[in-house]
Amino acid sequence: MMRKQGLSTLAIRMSGSMSGSYAEATTQRPQLVILGTGWGSYSVLRHIDKSMYDVVVVSPRNHFLFTPLLASTTVGTLEFRSVIEPVRDTIFRNAHHFHLAKAVSLDMANKIVKCQSTLSDNAYDISYDKLVIGVGAVANTFNIPGVEEHAIFLKEISDARKIRNRILANFEMALEPGIRTAEQKRLLSTVIVGGGPTGVEFGAELYDFVRQDVSRLYGEQAKQVNVTLIEASQILSMFDARLRKYAEKKIRERDRFNLLQAVVAEVRKDGVILKDGSEIPCGLVVWSTGIAQRKFTKALSVPKNKQEQILVDNYLRLTGDSTGDVYAIGDCSDIEGLHLPCTAQVAERQGRYLAGSLCKTPEKVSPFKFKNMGMLTYIGGYRALTDTPEAKLKGVMSWVLWRSAYLTRLGSWKLRLQVPMDWIKALFYGRDTSRFE
Amino acid sequence: MMRKQGLSTLAIRMSGSMSGSYAEATTQRPQLVILGTGWGSYSVLRHIDKSMYDVVVVSPRNHFLFTPLLASTTVGTLEFRSVIEPVRDTIFRNAHHFHLAKAVSLDMANKIVKCQSTLSDNAYDISYDKLVIGVGAVANTFNIPGVEEHAIFLKEISDARKIRNRILANFEMALEPGIRTAEQKRLLSTVIVGGGPTGVEFGAELYDFVRQDVSRLYGEQAKQVNVTLIEASQILSMFDARLRKYAEKKIRERDRFNLLQAVVAEVRKDGVILKDGSEIPCGLVVWSTGIAQRKFTKALSVPKNKQEQILVDNYLRLTGDSTGDVYAIGDCSDIEGLHLPCTAQVAERQGRYLAGSLCKTPEKVSPFKFKNMGMLTYIGGYRALTDTPEAKLKGVMSWVLWRSAYLTRLGSWKLRLQVPMDWIKALFYGRDTSRFE
Repeated sequence: MMRKQGLSTLAIRMSGSMSGSYAEATTQRPQLVILGTGWGSYSVLRHIDKSMYDVVVVSPRNHFLFTPLLASTTVGTLEFRSVIEPVRDTIFRNAHHFHLAKAVSLDMANKIVKCQSTLSDNAYDISYDKLVIGVGAVANTFNIPGVEEHAIFLKEISDARKIRNRILANFEMALEPGIRTAEQKRLLSTVIVGGGPTGVEFGAELYDFVRQDVSRLYGEQAKQVNVTLIEASQILSMFDARLRKYAEKKIRERDRFNLLQAVVAEVRKDGVILKDGSEIPCGLVVWSTGIAQRKFTKALSVPKNKQEQILVDNYLRLTGDSTGDVYAIGDCSDIEGLHLPCTAQVAERQGRYLAGSLCKTPEKVSPFKFKNMGMLTYIGGYRALTDTPEAKLKGVMSWVLWRSAYLTRLGSWKLRLQVPMDWIKALFYGRDTSRFE
Repeated sequence: MMRKQGLSTLAIRMSGSMSGSYAEATTQRPQLVILGTGWGSYSVLRHIDKSMYDVVVVSPRNHFLFTPLLASTTVGTLEFRSVIEPVRDTIFRNAHHFHLAKAVSLDMANKIVKCQSTLSDNAYDISYDKLVIGVGAVANTFNIPGVEEHAIFLKEISDARKIRNRILANFEMALEPGIRTAEQKRLLSTVIVGGGPTGVEFGAELYDFVRQDVSRLYGEQAKQVNVTLIEASQILSMFDARLRKYAEKKIRERDRFNLLQAVVAEVRKDGVILKDGSEIPCGLVVWSTGIAQRKFTKALSVPKNKQEQILVDNYLRLTGDSTGDVYAIGDCSDIEGLHLPCTAQVAERQGRYLAGSLCKTPEKVSPFKFKNMGMLTYIGGYRALTDTPEAKLKGVMSWVLWRSAYLTRLGSWKLRLQVPMDWIKALFYGRDTSRFE
């Protein structure tokens, strides 16, 4: 949303006033505590009626991340701040509170969340009248040795930043005088583990970067670039078979891009060991093989499913809670019997539904229903897949749809201005290869 | 420069070709080695006739930084990548080489630079026919205890990034429930040491950030914000007395902004100790008290001045070198008898002069002459100072001039598009307060 007060804010700014326009929350309204700032939680925050609740958001991340475009930031097609929204801006619009902290544990009897600052030693309690648990999930390592230490996940902006700096460092090192050929080859090899949308889209962005910028900027070394996508079963398994086959074919056609059906046994500093004992030397491993639950979720003593997701009813209330004041949404939760996929779409709908139902009298609230709007994924080379109940599309037109769809779904005009700007810059001037800590 | 081949590049990209357009340097031409990627060195790189030399650039930084706008990135008025140019783009235009490394030492007898990779253990020699030393300088700590450990300099993008993350962390911590008032006050206090243009401009940006965004986003805590600018003699000493007095007056008028004439004795983790024994508790110390020479420059056994700057003649050649093939420019050098100020302007002119004279026959080369174009500095609140031989301006019009002048001096159209975009975003949507590693 564009701040409608844009011009009046300008007027205030020019006048040099330092007085705050911040409305202190009154204690008249019930306190709604939201844990997390992902798709689900942010959606509650954006849509909640601010006159009904004092809203307190607790999250180790003070921004919302538009995850479908995260892969684009790993190579600089988009900049990091082009896909995030500072939560304080949203809080401001709702005149409420934010704390940069992790929820550590929950005392449901006394309605208290125990929090730990992510910046200091400060630990504190926050009491709630209503609680929304939307803490999300972490990457699943399947306890495979070396993953935590040597692989990079692709869940947060800091991950994307690590990947970008690693790629740029690898290219620079590969160009050092006197480097051995094997070491050069290793540095220019990337392994992606996991053939879901995240893995495929990172591969797609890497492909575009190599094709459009690397040969131009790094010369002969571009021919040594090698990317291997490892998937134990099949890539993009949730997509329509025809689209999936198309993606496989397109990826296989690419020079020095390999699709490998294999299982990873270990990740080392300088490569990946497969279950059959073979080794793939590489300079970067990106790990995206699905999700596992966070410590906080694991520690909760409430009914959960086999994947340790919190079980909720059709109203998104915890099944084990008699008060009816605790809700869970997104990747950390599972609607009993429904088992919806862990996607941004599901979380976002749940958040919006909850923002609505929290402001209605109980008898007016109807159960949550999910209508699948379909999936989009980018596969590189100006091609994407569109899989909706109505249509299955692939290719360049689908890519246009992919870009347009995400552009319109960005949460603010600031990003809707910046994202096309980034695309234009990448197209005409190439991606920025500056590396800094 | 806008890449003129924009559209044809697009055509190549769409065709999916991976073949490089990179021209390998021939060994026919003499090898010109440039150390550094700052104002001086980058200016040589941009203006050198590519048909005359094989150019090799060695620098621990693979981008050029537009330093006059660096302070703006500390609070998010501008984004980090809006004030830098990747050197590989420039190298590409000239079809030459870049190595991400530090020059360690110089063997002038054998015409060899010993280099150390900044990313790996790799050390290597690079031989030159002509050498340009433009390694710049580092911040001067005057051996005051604690500066290296606890203060942040403002010389590189990574410094600006550290400052931005520290400010945002301090604000978040100051809002933690149960925090003591003294600790809150400390976290919201910033000390700037050094009243030169860098210190003053950082203070200006901080002032704008506090006035325009902090009260809006952080509420009541904004009133605790406190900034102290410490200078031993007088601020902006190289500016015209009338402009300097105006800046002083404007800064002193500001609520909770203090100008302090004092000498720092020590910097601690939680504050600054002055020579008179008094203490200023603070959450951030930014140190900008002038320059000192780099290890490389210090280690060179060539004639230098008292400040350890390399002495050069009017043709920018090292005075102690009989071959006439080694040049030094910018902050690491001093033209004997002239003692020009260590500014971007001087370095840029020297670089451009050298790019020209390196391509002329010796008899056609005339000595370097510096014509001062004047100085600009931003003091916050939409006010700037303009000090040129022709005019002394101050206030809002000078601010308009400041913005316009720097916009036109940006090295590429990519930045000339992005910088106004950042200004517009900061104005209408506020500065981005997202914090990530």
